[in-house]
Amino acid sequence: MSVVTLLSDFGSRDPFVGEVKLVIARLAPGVVVIDVTHGINPGGVREGAWVLRKAWKQAPPGSCHVAVVDPGVGGDRRALAARAGGHFFVGPDNGLLVPALEDAGIESIHEITWRETEHRRFGTTFDGRDLFAPVAARLLRGERLREVGPEVDDPVPMAPYRPVAVDGGYRVEIVRVDGYGNLVTVAEESFLREKFGEDWRDVQVELDATQLGGVRLGYSDVGPGEMLLSIGGSGTLELSVRGGSAQAKTGLASGDCVRLVSGPR
Amino acid sequence: MSVVTLLSDFGSRDPFVGEVKLVIARLAPGVVVIDVTHGINPGGVREGAWVLRKAWKQAPPGSCHVAVVDPGVGGDRRALAARAGGHFFVGPDNGLLVPALEDAGIESIHEITWRETEHRRFGTTFDGRDLFAPVAARLLRGERLREVGPEVDDPVPMAPYRPVAVDGGYRVEIVRVDGYGNLVTVAEESFLREKFGEDWRDVQVELDATQLGGVRLGYSDVGPGEMLLSIGGSGTLELSVRGGSAQAKTGLASGDCVRLVSGPR
Amino acid sequence: MSVVTLLSDFGSRDPFVGEVKLVIARLAPGVVVIDVTHGINPGGVREGAWVLRKAWKQAPPGSCHVAVVDPGVGGDRRALAARAGGHFFVGPDNGLLVPALEDAGIESIHEITWRETEHRRFGTTFDGRDLFAPVAARLLRGERLREVGPEVDDPVPMAPYRPVAVDGGYRVEIVRVDGYGNLVTVAEESFLREKFGEDWRDVQVELDATQLGGVRLGYSDVGPGEMLLSIGGSGTLELSVRGGSAQAKTGLASGDCVRLVSGPR
Repeated sequence: MSVVTLLSDFGSRDPFVGEVKLVIARLAPGVVVIDVTHGINPGGVREGAWVLRKAWKQAPPGSCHVAVVDPGVGGDRRALAARAGGHFFVGPDNGLLVPALEDAGIESIHEITWRETEHRRFGTTFDGRDLFAPVAARLLRGERLREVGPEVDDPVPMAPYRPVAVDGGYRVEIVRVDGYGNLVTVAEESFLREKFGEDWRDVQVELDATQLGGVRLGYSDVGPGEMLLSIGGSGTLELSVRGGSAQAKTGLASGDCVRLVSGPR
Repeated sequence: MSVVTLLSDFGSRDPFVGEVKLVIARLAPGVVVIDVTHGINPGGVREGAWVLRKAWKQAPPGSCHVAVVDPGVGGDRRALAARAGGHFFVGPDNGLLVPALEDAGIESIHEITWRETEHRRFGTTFDGRDLFAPVAARLLRGERLREVGPEVDDPVPMAPYRPVAVDGGYRVEIVRVDGYGNLVTVAEESFLREKFGEDWRDVQVELDATQLGGVRLGYSDVGPGEMLLSIGGSGTLELSVRGGSAQAKTGLASGDCVRLVSGPR
Repeated sequence: MSVVTLLSDFGSRDPFVGEVKLVIARLAPGVVVIDVTHGINPGGVREGAWVLRKAWKQAPPGSCHVAVVDPGVGGDRRALAARAGGHFFVGPDNGLLVPALEDAGIESIHEITWRETEHRRFGTTFDGRDLFAPVAARLLRGERLREVGPEVDDPVPMAPYRPVAVDGGYRVEIVRVDGYGNLVTVAEESFLREKFGEDWRDVQVELDATQLGGVRLGYSDVGPGEMLLSIGGSGTLELSVRGGSAQAKTGLASGDCVRLVSGPR
């Protein structure tokens, strides 16, 4: 029972995701299709790459991950199909796949040069349906990557998700804002443990003049409307508001940075 | 072909649902996962319990229903796995499962004390992926409830969904507002038939000074923008506006009550 | 491995889609259910018919397409089940199915007069769950259309999706607005090639005083915030704004028309 995962910025209003699934059902009957999310912000390649890097490892071995956050569709960006960590990855060559590939352990990366005649692109702006889905179906039917196109060694890179040491602390990127308005940072729990030692839960986030401190185990530790720090579902530090939106409260957005400093002794 | 249903307030923007499905696909290959809805209002335990109670009985016998509306996640609320009416139910101990369990006929309720090492909680706020999904997979693979944890007899209760007799009529709760703005009440058609007899279709709803009467068979009986009463998909009385939102028109919200009285003779 | 596709205006907040899927899982175990979209504008029969006509052909042969955009539910409109092009189609008799049926090649159209006792309508406004889903399950289990009801030859029609010749050009309908704000017209690429010849890529769209010209291959040809014409995923002419919404920029909506004229020589 092979699995294809789908990740995109297609949203939930349009038939884009549905048409991708129909192509897969037709070309690879019996494959199970699972939506990781289609709620990546439009064109949010860096956010999509983060989500893919976190999600792929939850899938069964041999899964094929199709990711489409592709503001350059219709231009001359390449399309890629790759194998890493025993999984397949298919998507545009814009950095979207790279963090997951590196995390999984790259085996080989190929440019997709093949165009199936039946699935020639109907229009010019729907590679998800007309190119990536058919390639995923072929890979899950057992076809070799080299039949899809030649190996390449220069995929478009993605800057690492890594806190940067600054005077007296670390500058930490907010990599996405979830549907609750939680600000998800790139600071892994393991990073906090390494840098701040056994007192890592006392770490503080500087927000303008104020400091927000103390990593909680859950939302019930603070009052409604109060901010808190927690380790979220991604395993990284998140800024939240109980029963509210940290994005609305702070005005911070995806791509902004906050400063992490040691807590009071 | 076993079925897992998912119900939550996760919304459609984030990868939460996707990661839950990947865990199930990995731990229980071949299981069919069906989303009941992920559009419960954030933290709407009572609304979620209502939807679960209506939906579970549509599923095939032996299905496992995973429900996650869980504002206390990360705190010390218990997690439950139960069997009722030949179905399994998994979720937080906050009343969410109780109406469905009672409706189905409780066989046994267990606290989840087991923590699978592989699926130890990565963070502290994603029990759907890290606890409930693995438990559902284990139950569908044939494991006994008692292997998940000890039986309990004191789940957190949920107040019944029941109209209350008041002077000259019944006070009826609006239990949810659907995506069209329809106000869904707890008044079952069977209740209306029992209390108002053969004239039950003439029942009236008091809205401030005005009265809204007459249960219609469909939307085509009234003009655009007009309000109507109908028996909705839940089998209960709903207040609607043809081509519009009853929520917007009345200002009523989930949790509010209206008064039901006999129609004119 | 049979496929049921679902298309509706149910949105993603409510349990409507989930309950339809549960009924199918119970009555036709093993059937794969694929959502085309549930984001058709509420009551948008013409838009839904357009999307269905584009999507059905992506599905495997023998699929059953259930479409529910049904503002007349509960009234006396008929319900239809049909066979066309080796696929089944089930939905209300309001024109929704007709363009897909004609595109696929009509074999026979039947009124659904059967009411399964187990699935008698619980309420009066949820035919998707209580009527169409059970009929789809029966058809995929091998039942004949004539067991569902008598053949009819007068389905409610739908006006064709066709540009209309006007003085010096063509009046072209905007048939839907997608989630990105792109304005999707009914002008097929084949139509443009036929009417405008080898210079079809120079075609211009009149927007009030200004003219927008040139069919692009992708979004990277214009600057951010600029408008462009392209052939979209539907294979028809679309008006877009790079990194923005053409709907917001032009104020045009579904049902509006624009004028297509030859480009400059």
